[in-house]
Order: sequence, then C-alpha cells, then structure tokens
Amino acid sequence: MRNIKLVLEYDGTNFCGWQFQPRDRTVQEELKKSLSRILQEDVNIIGAGRTDSGVHASGQVANFLSNSEMSLYKMKAALNGTLPQDVRVLSIEAVPQHFNARFNAKKREYHYSISKRERAITRYYSLHFKGELDLEKIRQASQYLIGEHDFQSFCQSNAEVAHYICSIESMEWEETEDMIVLKIIANRFLHNMVRIIVGTMFEVGQGKIESDHVKKILEAKDRNSAGPTVAAKGLCLVRVYY
Amino acid sequence: MRNIKLVLEYDGTNFCGWQFQPRDRTVQEELKKSLSRILQEDVNIIGAGRTDSGVHASGQVANFLSNSEMSLYKMKAALNGTLPQDVRVLSIEAVPQHFNARFNAKKREYHYSISKRERAITRYYSLHFKGELDLEKIRQASQYLIGEHDFQSFCQSNAEVAHYICSIESMEWEETEDMIVLKIIANRFLHNMVRIIVGTMFEVGQGKIESDHVKKILEAKDRNSAGPTVAAKGLCLVRVYY
Repeated sequence: MRNIKLVLEYDGTNFCGWQFQPRDRTVQEELKKSLSRILQEDVNIIGAGRTDSGVHASGQVANFLSNSEMSLYKMKAALNGTLPQDVRVLSIEAVPQHFNARFNAKKREYHYSISKRERAITRYYSLHFKGELDLEKIRQASQYLIGEHDFQSFCQSNAEVAHYICSIESMEWEETEDMIVLKIIANRFLHNMVRIIVGTMFEVGQGKIESDHVKKILEAKDRNSAGPTVAAKGLCLVRVYY
Repeated sequence: MRNIKLVLEYDGTNFCGWQFQPRDRTVQEELKKSLSRILQEDVNIIGAGRTDSGVHASGQVANFLSNSEMSLYKMKAALNGTLPQDVRVLSIEAVPQHFNARFNAKKREYHYSISKRERAITRYYSLHFKGELDLEKIRQASQYLIGEHDFQSFCQSNAEVAHYICSIESMEWEETEDMIVLKIIANRFLHNMVRIIVGTMFEVGQGKIESDHVKKILEAKDRNSAGPTVAAKGLCLVRVYY
C-alpha cells in the first residue's frame, strides 16, 4: 500500500470549499470521485487546509493510501484528465506511510488579494477596496499579531476548536500599482482568521481604529471586538510547509 | 456635445468579442445598452481594437459623442453600476471633438500568456503549453518580425484589409517560474496576427523550424506558410497609445 501526496490548485469560485458536504460541490468530493474512477478503490483523502466556500488554492496538499500499482506519472495524467477544469493536480509523489497532509503540516501560507480598482479580469480572485488604505498603519498594526497569541477574537464564533493559540510567523503587505497583497504564514489558522484579520486591518488603514488598538482586540478574546469578515474570493492557500 | 473617452477592462471569456453582432453577446453591445439606459440617448461607440471572441482587454479604449450633461464622475459610477461584472470602466474623460479611439491610435500593446503547467486559477487567461520551449530561439526568430513588414502570412486568410503592412515596434518574451508572456507593440494588428505569431513561435521553440525560417514565412505572404492560430484566451489588449 502506497501513501500518495498531491499538490493541488483549484479555483474556489464554484466550490463550497474543500471539505466533503452531503449536498454541495466540494474539492474533496471531486477528487474522491476521480480517484475511485481511476483506481477502482474507495480512498480516504486528507487535506492540509480546509478552505472555505469561494477560497482558492494554488498549493493545497492532500494525501491518501492506495493499493493501486499504477505509475504516479500515469495517475497524475489520469487525474487531470478526469477532474473538472477548476481543479488541477500540480504534482504527485509517494511519501512515507506515516505522512499526514494535515497533521504533519508545520506552517501554512495564505495570500489575500485586494484590488485598488474595480476589475473585470481578476474579479473572482481579489476583493476591490474602494478608498484609501494607510499601509504604514496597517504594517504597524500587523506587528501586534506576529508571534504566538490567542486569536479567539479573529475566529468565527461558532468554531469548535480545542484552543485558539496560533503562531503567526510573518505578515507582509505587498503593494503594486493595482493591488495590495497580504502574505501571511502561521502554524495554523482558525476559521475565517485571515478574512477577519484583513477586515480589521481595513479599519486600521482607514483610520477608524488606531494601530495599537489591535493589541486590545487580541486581549478581548471576543469576535465582536474585531473587524468584519471580508469576502472569500480574495483568499488563496498558496503553500503548506512540512 | 461632448466627446467622451473610456478606458475599459473586460474578461473576454463570455463575449463574442468587441464588435456588435446581431445575435451574440459583445462588449460593444453591452456598453451601448448601458449608455442608452443611463444617458437616454443612442450613442455610437468607437473602439480602438476589435478584439475577437474570448480575447481579454485590460486597456481597451473607446469613445462616443453625447449630448448628456451628466458629470463624468457620475457617468463612470452609473456605467459600472449597470454594466455586467465582466466589463469595467477604468477611467473616463472628455476629449477634443476630433478624437477617434480607432483612427488616432498610434500603437497597440497586446500580451499573450503561456502557462508552463496546467492551471485551474488562470485557465481562462492563459494557454497551457505542454513541453519545452527554447526561448532563445524564439527571441532570435522574433527579431525577423520587428520593424515594418508585410504580415499577410500572419493574417487570417479571409480578412478584408487594404494592405498587410504593419510595423512591430517590440516583442518581449518574459519568463517567470510558471509563465511565459509575449509583450508585443505595433502600430496595427491584422486579424489573428498575434495568435498566429505565437503559434509559429511554438514551432520555432520546439525546434520544428529554424529561427531564420521566419524570414521565409514573411516573404511567402501566405497564411499556410506560418504556424497554427493559438487559443484566444491567452490574449489581452493591454494598452492603446495615442
């Protein structure tokens, strides 16, 4: 039995997220359907990040155990031949039996794309922010989030998790002529965490709250103290580190 | 009466190109519909580049004459409020009466995006090329096209034009980890010219023809001497120079 690791890209626009749901179209389900068709076996797919409805991925990682003896080269081609066009297998490899895409992930990197003007071409892959954002204030405020903290204030309230401690390694705000992109790396992310962070930073960038108020938001451990949850479409799971 | 100039972005995926057609969805028609709704007058819209079905634009230019006294700020907002999401007005300004978006254009810039791997997210905005391309050979071959030449070999055969002389100012092939982008600037482009150039360069890059054979293709003045027409989706009208 082989343990097979996939790196996946998907356009989240027409998916109800990664994780299997009885009635909705999900990436995990499409993958499972293609794999059972190709391998004639029922596989259990583990994903590194459970991306939400509308969230994209350019570097999602998944693994599954298989009895098939098909070459990996052939398996990749067969997957890309049967999967819908909005999911692509970027790479495939055999990994040690104990590898688990979710539990062995050390860090995850997400990007959030903010468009400075209304766009047609990137409308499904970025959020248009109308108005000015003071990136210096946003960068200052970000410093309060870096490191290990309790992120309960930045977690969707109905989340069922054992604890809210996350360690953010870095937050970079890159600006080009048209776009602002937040690149954030952390050991784990709570439900909607990046989207609530961005919503809060919009308030900082507009001068509605001071940069150092972010410290108070963290201390409050209350979702209501933070800013709104911004749209899913700007978010992309870019890389998983092992 | 004011002459109004628009800079437009559109996602060509669901359009049968720029130019009005009786039965198909076109950008010109959507714009005309929105303008008549907003201004309550029937306007004649002139576009700088007649992009084909599936071709995108991030900097198409159009102009029209209007009797309306609506402020341009308001007109832009009203257009983006009524136009479908796959067309956006990026800017609007009043220009001298004699300005004609098509005939005053000095140069046009198109980009053609080639994806080195199968993609989900950019699948509508780039063409996936399977295999290796020798960019050095392609760059050498491109030198034969730069300058003023008869491009009949690079024009779709049924085109009705007075002549085939075009002047290519520059062709740059930029390579990143995932993509190769051709950036081409010329005074005018014939029907499918960029897509036939790219199709021919694929043959050069794969070693099927030599770089200097491109000179012979030009001299042949015969569409059959050049390579195939590649997919529309990789092409984008990026800028019009006046």
